[in-house]
Amino acid sequence: MFTTKVKSEVIKNLIDVTSPLVNEAKFSITQDGISLRAVDPAHVAMVSLTLNKEAFDEYKAQDMELGIDLDKLASIMRLASSGDVITLDHDDSKNQLVITIGNLTRRMALIDTAGMPDSKVPNLELPAKVVVKAGEISRGVKASESISDHLCLRVEKDLFNLSAEGDTDTVDLKLGKDSVEKIDTNDSYKSMFSIDYFYNMIKPVKPSDPLTISLGNDNPVRLDFSIASDNGSVTYLLAPRIETD
Amino acid sequence: MFTTKVKSEVIKNLIDVTSPLVNEAKFSITQDGISLRAVDPAHVAMVSLTLNKEAFDEYKAQDMELGIDLDKLASIMRLASSGDVITLDHDDSKNQLVITIGNLTRRMALIDTAGMPDSKVPNLELPAKVVVKAGEISRGVKASESISDHLCLRVEKDLFNLSAEGDTDTVDLKLGKDSVEKIDTNDSYKSMFSIDYFYNMIKPVKPSDPLTISLGNDNPVRLDFSIASDNGSVTYLLAPRIETD
Amino acid sequence: MFTTKVKSEVIKNLIDVTSPLVNEAKFSITQDGISLRAVDPAHVAMVSLTLNKEAFDEYKAQDMELGIDLDKLASIMRLASSGDVITLDHDDSKNQLVITIGNLTRRMALIDTAGMPDSKVPNLELPAKVVVKAGEISRGVKASESISDHLCLRVEKDLFNLSAEGDTDTVDLKLGKDSVEKIDTNDSYKSMFSIDYFYNMIKPVKPSDPLTISLGNDNPVRLDFSIASDNGSVTYLLAPRIETD
Repeated sequence: MFTTKVKSEVIKNLIDVTSPLVNEAKFSITQDGISLRAVDPAHVAMVSLTLNKEAFDEYKAQDMELGIDLDKLASIMRLASSGDVITLDHDDSKNQLVITIGNLTRRMALIDTAGMPDSKVPNLELPAKVVVKAGEISRGVKASESISDHLCLRVEKDLFNLSAEGDTDTVDLKLGKDSVEKIDTNDSYKSMFSIDYFYNMIKPVKPSDPLTISLGNDNPVRLDFSIASDNGSVTYLLAPRIETD
Repeated sequence: MFTTKVKSEVIKNLIDVTSPLVNEAKFSITQDGISLRAVDPAHVAMVSLTLNKEAFDEYKAQDMELGIDLDKLASIMRLASSGDVITLDHDDSKNQLVITIGNLTRRMALIDTAGMPDSKVPNLELPAKVVVKAGEISRGVKASESISDHLCLRVEKDLFNLSAEGDTDTVDLKLGKDSVEKIDTNDSYKSMFSIDYFYNMIKPVKPSDPLTISLGNDNPVRLDFSIASDNGSVTYLLAPRIETD
Repeated sequence: MFTTKVKSEVIKNLIDVTSPLVNEAKFSITQDGISLRAVDPAHVAMVSLTLNKEAFDEYKAQDMELGIDLDKLASIMRLASSGDVITLDHDDSKNQLVITIGNLTRRMALIDTAGMPDSKVPNLELPAKVVVKAGEISRGVKASESISDHLCLRVEKDLFNLSAEGDTDTVDLKLGKDSVEKIDTNDSYKSMFSIDYFYNMIKPVKPSDPLTISLGNDNPVRLDFSIASDNGSVTYLLAPRIETD
């Protein structure tokens, strides 16, 4: 059983967070909420998402898995206006997701989850932590896009630094104590990442929302932020690019 | 003679209504107003439009026909801002349409109407009638577009229903007595139509404007709505798709 | 030395004015301001631009030349929001332009100016002068675009006229004394010009800003307007198309 009412924005946000990495996803349903873990086809990035039942206007569910085509769900959600409360139900007999938006009922076939892998969030020790508004770093990522395909994140006492180097041009974003909400590190750490992936991961975060960045040396970066008015959370992991020169 | 002043919106609306079906159209001018009847090249749909002289700020005309390239007229109307009153005159000696927008005079050659057919609106008995705000059904049409190329309209006592079926997915829009302005039928009727054509026909109607839908069994659908602040009217006819399974 | 602070709009405007003619430009820097003169690759049009030091929030400079890739500078300026004050500095040791936007530092390689020609503004006697708001003529240029590739500018006592002729259609914009700010001529003059070039030259001018048009017979047209709140000025010259029929 899965019978819910929810603001369309919550589902749109869930799609925005997940679809940069995968086209199809397996949602795990319990009586407490929804969760999802997925790795992109190139095995470079992972998303882990939870949405508590408090994120829904109404929520009744038993344990089950829903395999969802995210592009299709996104196109259906575009039929809903912002502010619309929609219903999302599971039709057990037909294995369809039943979405109602006002007078409209849209039945969508689910994908067989048998072939979809279970991903585990790897246990990582990332010694440095920065909390920063997402909007503070997006300008640096956009600037880097036109000169390179990878960027460097670096943290030291009282400084978070995003930089990129092209053949002739450079980008350097320095956020000191005044520009971040928190820097927690005892040492200096840095790693390099694909700009495309990193940009896709900060895009779904509202510019004014705090983003927690966890960093090590030549280690993955971990991004944490909350969704659905703090009734849900997202964790991204992105593998580093190791410099070989 | 044809000498008029008119708000640019009235002409833009006339183009929006006609151009989905034909690129060129023959306008019949009388001293009482303008009318047009045209059938699309595939002979699936017809538009019949009248614009009373009251739709114009000034109107003086004698009987004549104007053959107009609608794409060209549309591109000229884009030069006018909303709220602009323009003049539309016929230059009898050069057989040109003379459009003035502010200080600009744009002379446009007319098309020879000799080869353009005269269409008659067929006499149809369509037993069921629904009056509904256009915005109520557009969500259903948009939802159907992604899963099929045809949709089914059905009317019965106290219910108007729009539905579409794909290989695995379905769309079902149910409008009861509360969601329509009027349902007038004694029996149940249904017919199927091309989504592309039907969508093009409801797009020019303002979401809050009432649309009258007349329906039979495996018969054309007839859509009626008014334009130019009730100083004009449009009738669309769309041939049904007959199910052959 | 070149060390400045400036509102991002001033630099964006400078790019808008220059980039329709050239992709790369040589800026001449003095202690009083910036200037630039460039001819398009087809040698049909010239832009001459000056930006006084008063256009900058802060300005310190010695004589030098900066060779700038305008597309690259435009993409960097898109990182700045309207209202942002940015810094533009020259790093003498690395020959880079250093742009800071908030916490972001973007270093951009400069282009070698050795191969870039010095253009001189030719000395032209253009007997007629019209001052008109740019917005008054843009509708005429847009209307002409769809029917021809050249337009005719004509000035006589109390009338400025822009016209174009296609195979079957015509455009005619007449601006009398009431629609222009000033007409200064003792005779009638006219010349023809490429619509594409002419359109590119009036596009960067704000519709409500006055534009001075200087005209002769089968002679170039000269357009003058000010930028940066009158702390800079632009002159365009466009060669005529001579009618050969």
